[in-house]
Amino acid sequence: MNILKNLPRPVKTAKDAYKAEMTGLELKLGALQRRIIGAKIPVMIVFEGWDASGKGTLINKLMMSFDPRGYNVHSISKPNEEEAFRPFLWRFWTKTPENGRIAIFDRSWYRRVSTERVDKDVRKDECGNAYADINTFEKQLVDGGGVIVKIFLHITRKEQRKRFKKLRGNPATSWRVTKDDIKHHRQYGKYLKTYDEMIKSTDTEYASWTVVDSSSQKAAALAIFRLIAKKLDKALSSDGSSKPVKHRPAPSSYQKKILAKVDLGRILQKDEYLRKLDDCQERIRDIEHEIYRKRMPVLVLYEGWDAAGKGGNIRRLVQSMDPRGYEVVPIAAPSDIEKRHHYQWRFWNRIPKAGHMAIFDRTWYGRVLVERVEGFCSEKEWRRSYGEINDMERHISSFGAVIVKFWLNISNEEQLRRFKERQTTPWKQWKITDEDWRNREKWDLYSAAVDEMIDRTSTSHAPWTIVESNCKYFARIKAIETVIGAVEKAL
Amino acid sequence: MNILKNLPRPVKTAKDAYKAEMTGLELKLGALQRRIIGAKIPVMIVFEGWDASGKGTLINKLMMSFDPRGYNVHSISKPNEEEAFRPFLWRFWTKTPENGRIAIFDRSWYRRVSTERVDKDVRKDECGNAYADINTFEKQLVDGGGVIVKIFLHITRKEQRKRFKKLRGNPATSWRVTKDDIKHHRQYGKYLKTYDEMIKSTDTEYASWTVVDSSSQKAAALAIFRLIAKKLDKALSSDGSSKPVKHRPAPSSYQKKILAKVDLGRILQKDEYLRKLDDCQERIRDIEHEIYRKRMPVLVLYEGWDAAGKGGNIRRLVQSMDPRGYEVVPIAAPSDIEKRHHYQWRFWNRIPKAGHMAIFDRTWYGRVLVERVEGFCSEKEWRRSYGEINDMERHISSFGAVIVKFWLNISNEEQLRRFKERQTTPWKQWKITDEDWRNREKWDLYSAAVDEMIDRTSTSHAPWTIVESNCKYFARIKAIETVIGAVEKAL
Repeated sequence: MNILKNLPRPVKTAKDAYKAEMTGLELKLGALQRRIIGAKIPVMIVFEGWDASGKGTLINKLMMSFDPRGYNVHSISKPNEEEAFRPFLWRFWTKTPENGRIAIFDRSWYRRVSTERVDKDVRKDECGNAYADINTFEKQLVDGGGVIVKIFLHITRKEQRKRFKKLRGNPATSWRVTKDDIKHHRQYGKYLKTYDEMIKSTDTEYASWTVVDSSSQKAAALAIFRLIAKKLDKALSSDGSSKPVKHRPAPSSYQKKILAKVDLGRILQKDEYLRKLDDCQERIRDIEHEIYRKRMPVLVLYEGWDAAGKGGNIRRLVQSMDPRGYEVVPIAAPSDIEKRHHYQWRFWNRIPKAGHMAIFDRTWYGRVLVERVEGFCSEKEWRRSYGEINDMERHISSFGAVIVKFWLNISNEEQLRRFKERQTTPWKQWKITDEDWRNREKWDLYSAAVDEMIDRTSTSHAPWTIVESNCKYFARIKAIETVIGAVEKAL
Repeated sequence: MNILKNLPRPVKTAKDAYKAEMTGLELKLGALQRRIIGAKIPVMIVFEGWDASGKGTLINKLMMSFDPRGYNVHSISKPNEEEAFRPFLWRFWTKTPENGRIAIFDRSWYRRVSTERVDKDVRKDECGNAYADINTFEKQLVDGGGVIVKIFLHITRKEQRKRFKKLRGNPATSWRVTKDDIKHHRQYGKYLKTYDEMIKSTDTEYASWTVVDSSSQKAAALAIFRLIAKKLDKALSSDGSSKPVKHRPAPSSYQKKILAKVDLGRILQKDEYLRKLDDCQERIRDIEHEIYRKRMPVLVLYEGWDAAGKGGNIRRLVQSMDPRGYEVVPIAAPSDIEKRHHYQWRFWNRIPKAGHMAIFDRTWYGRVLVERVEGFCSEKEWRRSYGEINDMERHISSFGAVIVKFWLNISNEEQLRRFKERQTTPWKQWKITDEDWRNREKWDLYSAAVDEMIDRTSTSHAPWTIVESNCKYFARIKAIETVIGAVEKAL
């Protein structure tokens, strides 16, 4: 049964009754917004629907109830150049609101499975993946404490024709009917089927659809205002209010031992190293050019023990590369803006453009390493993170990206030796801090976290490579060769 | 005399001497970078020069000396769609580095007065303005505590031909010679003249040019490393180290009285207001469409006393507008990221796209109002700000933008009445805070700051409009009519 075709007609409200209820709702939404700010809940309100169904007018009306300091409106059309070079959710992840803010979307990520599908920019078999990606995206935001309200504004083909006719009849408004509008009107039947499937495939418990008959603007406005008030009310009443707490430490061992089995005796002599390095660096420069020509994005992720040699390793990787083609992205503690967003937001902001390489010096795995061990997030949060990270990497990889993940592994004794060396060498002293010594005391906790991380997030599209790094020469060559191999395989 | 034609040939350095000096310089640059981070100095290193002069290689070599966590590289080519719809400095302002970070530019804003000029995208008479804009931009960054190092890599026409020939002769590198490169090589003579004028017109005391003969890569590398080390050393030794201090209050009167002369008795009756409001809102919707078609950016700036009615005024302005065409930009206290940038950086990030309207609820004038009165910045800083703001507005306006600036004025008594009303009306109580009462005690200080602001920043391209706001109806109509009038005049 087609949801849209079988929509009940809206109940009419008398003018006075409308005015009374609307005034009450407007005040209520204003008050709710202030409580949303206090409770730090991020809210997304999505408007989808037919051309000429009144999205603009209704959004504007809704905005009038809110304090303009607390919301943003995003109008979504065809992706621009920057956006087309990224996985399709990129432009939406980067637009997810800060805690306490409301993001209103005038069209949204559903463009992917409606307009882009009808226009054949997305094949039918890709649509299934897109639904899964969308549902995952919404689930992650809701799991992170967000609220998503999705509204579909429906009008019949007849009503749409009537509205276009009226707009075109008036010289002042005729410009508002575009060629695309006319085209979409002719394709009404096709869209009806597409929208129906879209709504059914993405009507989830955590982010349900509300279809609103907008043949009467007033009835639609009432329905939408009531809906949003209800959803915000519900979110506020169930809000567990996230006070910053120090969480308890995680278990110090994991059933599957991975690091313990690594052979750290592997070495490379200096002359062989230098010879291989030359070859690798020549090859990586060609690789950089090939990924540019093929518009392939590459992500190289570095994690590892303190003093495992991440910095030096990255340096050798990029030494001969053209700086226009790569970027080193250092990940430190989140800024205050980043803290006000979903954990993954700041990483989405750094996803490389197709044809470019991004080298991450520490990564989103911080969630299941330092944040887990130091208790910066709850056990529920870091446990959820494995799945969220796998989802994110799958989405990026299905866009055509190559993902290489390194764990630079050294022994406990080797770390101690390097720490001591840093302390006694004048130009290395800045590299060693009290925090490094404190982290070192938690070696077993970190070890267990690494074992679990590698076990749970080694996927076919984004496998971990453990780099034996007691010998820096060996580690550097292995890392560069792994990047070369992964890209060559993908090319 | 052409600077480039008369460059002395570089002195050759023996291989061993080169290696020894270079190793020393690399260590030195690394150490300097760490001190730059500590001293919170933002650094910009600009590489300009001929195609095939070795910019990429030299930049990469330079990067190896720095900790990758502390710098970014920006490769500048033709502006993309987003950038072309903004004043030309927009993409550079938004890329200025945080305090303590180094931004390396592989080509830069000088594209405007070199490639774009030779390609006739910029007319000769516009070039004069572009030089002024560039010098102003650099001066503001240096005044804000930044360091700018500008390097021009020079090779002769003959050398360039030789390099292209070599690159094209090798199948592995032939792709690196583009059609544009060949075109530019043919135009060598034209570029020689253009670069000469560019260097002479922008070689300032605060941001001087260094021309480096890069026919020998090693000699060029030594020259560049020495130069950067010298510049960073100098910046560190003259750094006044900016501890956060509370500055002394500004004088409480200004010789030119402006607010005192405003006639606050102007009113509008409700029925006339409603009639006019209808007319205005119909017209503003058309205006919004016209600015979109003409690709004209519009900035509407709201400043005013607490409780002067900014929020309600903005609401009436946008009520009938299409949300796709405008954005309300609320300006609050800066975030920690924003604090680490030049004061104007966060405003540049919010400049509207051509064809769109941005309505600022509070603005960059915060510098000469709240920051001045509360002592959040030094007297030197807010005094400098008048000129900086005028420069910024001139740059935006010369791109074709309309700038409308409102001061919403109410009397001291009216403010008191509104504050009391807010306290006693349940749904308005959230609007009044202790801070509002504290600010009220500084009425005279704020008055003097407003008088001086209006006097010093009323320009022909961005005039202030004082909106008499004791009567909200009058104020709302006046504001909308002013916006309509300003846009109509520009159209």
